[in-house]
Amino acid sequence: MIAVRDKVRFVETDLMGVVHHSNYLRWFEMARVEYLRAANVLLPELIASGIVFPITEVQCKYKHSAHFDEIIRVEARLDDFSRAKLCFSYRVLRDADDVLLAEGYTQNLFTDTNGRIIRLPQLYFDRINSVRQAENGGVA
Amino acid sequence: MIAVRDKVRFVETDLMGVVHHSNYLRWFEMARVEYLRAANVLLPELIASGIVFPITEVQCKYKHSAHFDEIIRVEARLDDFSRAKLCFSYRVLRDADDVLLAEGYTQNLFTDTNGRIIRLPQLYFDRINSVRQAENGGVA
Amino acid sequence: MIAVRDKVRFVETDLMGVVHHSNYLRWFEMARVEYLRAANVLLPELIASGIVFPITEVQCKYKHSAHFDEIIRVEARLDDFSRAKLCFSYRVLRDADDVLLAEGYTQNLFTDTNGRIIRLPQLYFDRINSVRQAENGGVA
Amino acid sequence: MIAVRDKVRFVETDLMGVVHHSNYLRWFEMARVEYLRAANVLLPELIASGIVFPITEVQCKYKHSAHFDEIIRVEARLDDFSRAKLCFSYRVLRDADDVLLAEGYTQNLFTDTNGRIIRLPQLYFDRINSVRQAENGGVA
Repeated sequence: MIAVRDKVRFVETDLMGVVHHSNYLRWFEMARVEYLRAANVLLPELIASGIVFPITEVQCKYKHSAHFDEIIRVEARLDDFSRAKLCFSYRVLRDADDVLLAEGYTQNLFTDTNGRIIRLPQLYFDRINSVRQAENGGVA
Repeated sequence: MIAVRDKVRFVETDLMGVVHHSNYLRWFEMARVEYLRAANVLLPELIASGIVFPITEVQCKYKHSAHFDEIIRVEARLDDFSRAKLCFSYRVLRDADDVLLAEGYTQNLFTDTNGRIIRLPQLYFDRINSVRQAENGGVA
Repeated sequence: MIAVRDKVRFVETDLMGVVHHSNYLRWFEMARVEYLRAANVLLPELIASGIVFPITEVQCKYKHSAHFDEIIRVEARLDDFSRAKLCFSYRVLRDADDVLLAEGYTQNLFTDTNGRIIRLPQLYFDRINSVRQAENGGVA
Repeated sequence: MIAVRDKVRFVETDLMGVVHHSNYLRWFEMARVEYLRAANVLLPELIASGIVFPITEVQCKYKHSAHFDEIIRVEARLDDFSRAKLCFSYRVLRDADDVLLAEGYTQNLFTDTNGRIIRLPQLYFDRINSVRQAENGGVA
């Protein structure tokens, strides 16, 4: 599991006075990016080699509102992983008191730049897999 | 069913060259707002009377990418509805050829400004219900 | 002068209850894109041929707030134009009563994909120039 | 001068492969919020007491593009300040090598919730003024 922290931006609120629900997907992404970085999988490098990884599904359940200026903590966990897809689950917490604000998941596929589904090269698979095994106490 | 059309904005794309997945939630919202307007339920009026309607769940499945400058059409349908919650489903289509780009759903609750769950006043319930019955050919 | 209309989205508001000021730059862009389209200059085509056109300066003066669900009209005018740069000015109006909400300008350069300044190919220059001359009553 | 750091988000890029120019205004805002916090002026507290502070002018000059995943540093400086308005200037730097990416300014007024211009209460003025004097080596 990888966690990132960030401070809620003014622009992320809406006229109901709380964070707009679409921003949680952007927070999920921040944690997903850090997870992949921990595996030394850098998205610009993937893109430069012609691999894109579109989101194919996202779900989010909202428990409590996030407010301007609060520190939020986003945790990402790799739930399912193959050379065909990546499934992450996420939790967003208010960092001050660990209240769960939202949880959700995303699924990515790998495609070439024409949108055709491809398999992730073994090199990247191995990198991600090592991080995942470390997470799971060494059990693949 | 209510449909809205809009043109994909440059700012809605990301460095993968297609629309960022978080924007579909904002497009769902545009269609949801129009559905409620068709029922003469105006969100600023609700908020002014102390009723907020946070999203409690959202899901989206992405089929094909939307691109800059394409016209997209967003359809909203009210699937489930009571004085406690609203459940909408959505389809996003490329308007030029009706290709389905994404589909999803949202669930809203009604709360007061302190976040306590309330029941939607009968007045608003009746307005939404008439639109929904009209949609369903008069069958409630 | 080219004008586009759009409806203020819920997500464009912030907790002060009005449209967040950063969104006006996105509205300017919508009008700029339409201006260029009127000249048959399509941004994806330019990018595909290795030409990018980064914004080098933007300014906006805000007169009145835009609110959720209002129709806004954005007018773009090409003020200065050469094969080295494009300078547009903009006005954002509340469409219902023509109240001026904001006005501003942007400046673009043309660069290659490595960020080196280039001159716009004559083909595109001519297209933009015809629209501009038409705007100015045929006087270049 | 107050500085904040943040990491460029994937969603902040556009199909030209760099950060969309509108996001710099959101980064300015992050630094402005921190400046006011350093003065113990909390925006939600101001809003709760009926004071809003709309941006009336913004300008930004872009020197170099920011890229996904880079750490940016945003510096805010209070240039002009009275009970009627706040004028900040900003610099955005790539934190790794201090390259200046953009610079700009904003102007805020103070209004009541009906948009009427008001003067900032002395309490808040004094708080901001102490931070500013500290910045200027004690010279008001």
